[in-house]
Amino acid sequence: MSILQRSLNKQVSVRLKSEIEYAGKMSNVDPYMNVILVDAEESENGKKIANYGKVVIRGNNVLYVRIADRL
Amino acid sequence: MSILQRSLNKQVSVRLKSEIEYAGKMSNVDPYMNVILVDAEESENGKKIANYGKVVIRGNNVLYVRIADRL
Amino acid sequence: MSILQRSLNKQVSVRLKSEIEYAGKMSNVDPYMNVILVDAEESENGKKIANYGKVVIRGNNVLYVRIADRL
Amino acid sequence: MSILQRSLNKQVSVRLKSEIEYAGKMSNVDPYMNVILVDAEESENGKKIANYGKVVIRGNNVLYVRIADRL
Amino acid sequence: MSILQRSLNKQVSVRLKSEIEYAGKMSNVDPYMNVILVDAEESENGKKIANYGKVVIRGNNVLYVRIADRL
Amino acid sequence: MSILQRSLNKQVSVRLKSEIEYAGKMSNVDPYMNVILVDAEESENGKKIANYGKVVIRGNNVLYVRIADRL
Amino acid sequence: MSILQRSLNKQVSVRLKSEIEYAGKMSNVDPYMNVILVDAEESENGKKIANYGKVVIRGNNVLYVRIADRL
Repeated sequence: MSILQRSLNKQVSVRLKSEIEYAGKMSNVDPYMNVILVDAEESENGKKIANYGKVVIRGNNVLYVRIADRL
Repeated sequence: MSILQRSLNKQVSVRLKSEIEYAGKMSNVDPYMNVILVDAEESENGKKIANYGKVVIRGNNVLYVRIADRL
Repeated sequence: MSILQRSLNKQVSVRLKSEIEYAGKMSNVDPYMNVILVDAEESENGKKIANYGKVVIRGNNVLYVRIADRL
Repeated sequence: MSILQRSLNKQVSVRLKSEIEYAGKMSNVDPYMNVILVDAEESENGKKIANYGKVVIRGNNVLYVRIADRL
Repeated sequence: MSILQRSLNKQVSVRLKSEIEYAGKMSNVDPYMNVILVDAEESENGKKIANYGKVVIRGNNVLYVRIADRL
Repeated sequence: MSILQRSLNKQVSVRLKSEIEYAGKMSNVDPYMNVILVDAEESENGKKIANYGKVVIRGNNVLYVRIADRL
Repeated sequence: MSILQRSLNKQVSVRLKSEIEYAGKMSNVDPYMNVILVDAEESENGKKIANYGKVVIRGNNVLYVRIADRL
């Protein structure tokens, strides 16, 4: 999904199969949808839980990657 | 499933294993059924929840892709 | 399972791991049991829920494909 | 598992991960344990539920295939 | 795991992810841990449920294979 | 993970996704983390349940393998 | 994800799909996200449970790997 590659260094939101979501700058992504986020914010049901400097999310947990509307 | 490839840029509905459904223009799809939707609407049990500009849905969550009746 | 290939354009019922079932004309199927149904009827516990013109069911959700008795 | 291949056209019982079981003549089976049953009877907890002329069971749902004692 | 190959025709116990266990003579096993048991006894929580002449257990349901202490 | 290969014949603890844990001498392990334990002790929530002479644990059930501190 | 390779011997936190988290020095990681931690601390909901000298976490259980902010 080359749209993901073209969105490197953009803001994205990564929604997991659970209600948890991570928003941050996508510094890398691979075809399995493993995603590296920088300056990530973790939220659950829209409520902020924590901030992470760098986090590598394993693709099999991902429901979707939402790309910020203005690219 | 070449029907999916022939339906690019058509309106589709993507139903997940949960009750959640995404409707939008399918700008891309791959054999694993990873789907990119543009101008997508998220609904649950037929009730609209949110709108997304661009969303990449990971195929393993997909139950079915429904193609608009008039192609 | 070549019986599936030989049953193209026949009526089939696709039962999911959940109680949901789809009946329709099988216009395509692949070895992973991704199935395309045309004029499909969705039912749950034998009760009709909805009709779909064309639906692509992702194989990993499938429990079985039942082929109409008279081929 | 060549025992399965040698049991073609014999009576078998296919038990799913759920309590559901299918008994019938095994007209085909592949290494993934996708099984085609003819004249199949579906039962749950030993109680008969339904009869199917031909059914293709997707292997990933299978717990075991029991082969009739007298081959 | 060649120990499994060396244990052919020995008594083994196959424990599933559920509480169910099958004990019998292992007439075959493959690398995916699909196991064929002969003269198998099914038990749940240590209580005998049923006897099977020949049963092919699909490997993905297996938690462990226990080999009789005296080989 | 060559550390596992280097730990053959050492004492390890294999924790499953459930609360169950097996401690014993690791006589073999493969890249899928299928593990053979000898003189294994099964415990749940730290309480001993049973002893097994030889047990082959299927890798997909494993959460982690803990290696005894003094190698 | 080469960021993981570049973070060898750094402090990381490995969060599982459950609420459990392991913090320690990442002595190795592979593309499947199998992770070896040294001097690892196990915690659940932020409460410390146990310490492990060396632990090999199987990748399929991993939700994310968080890398310490100061690399």
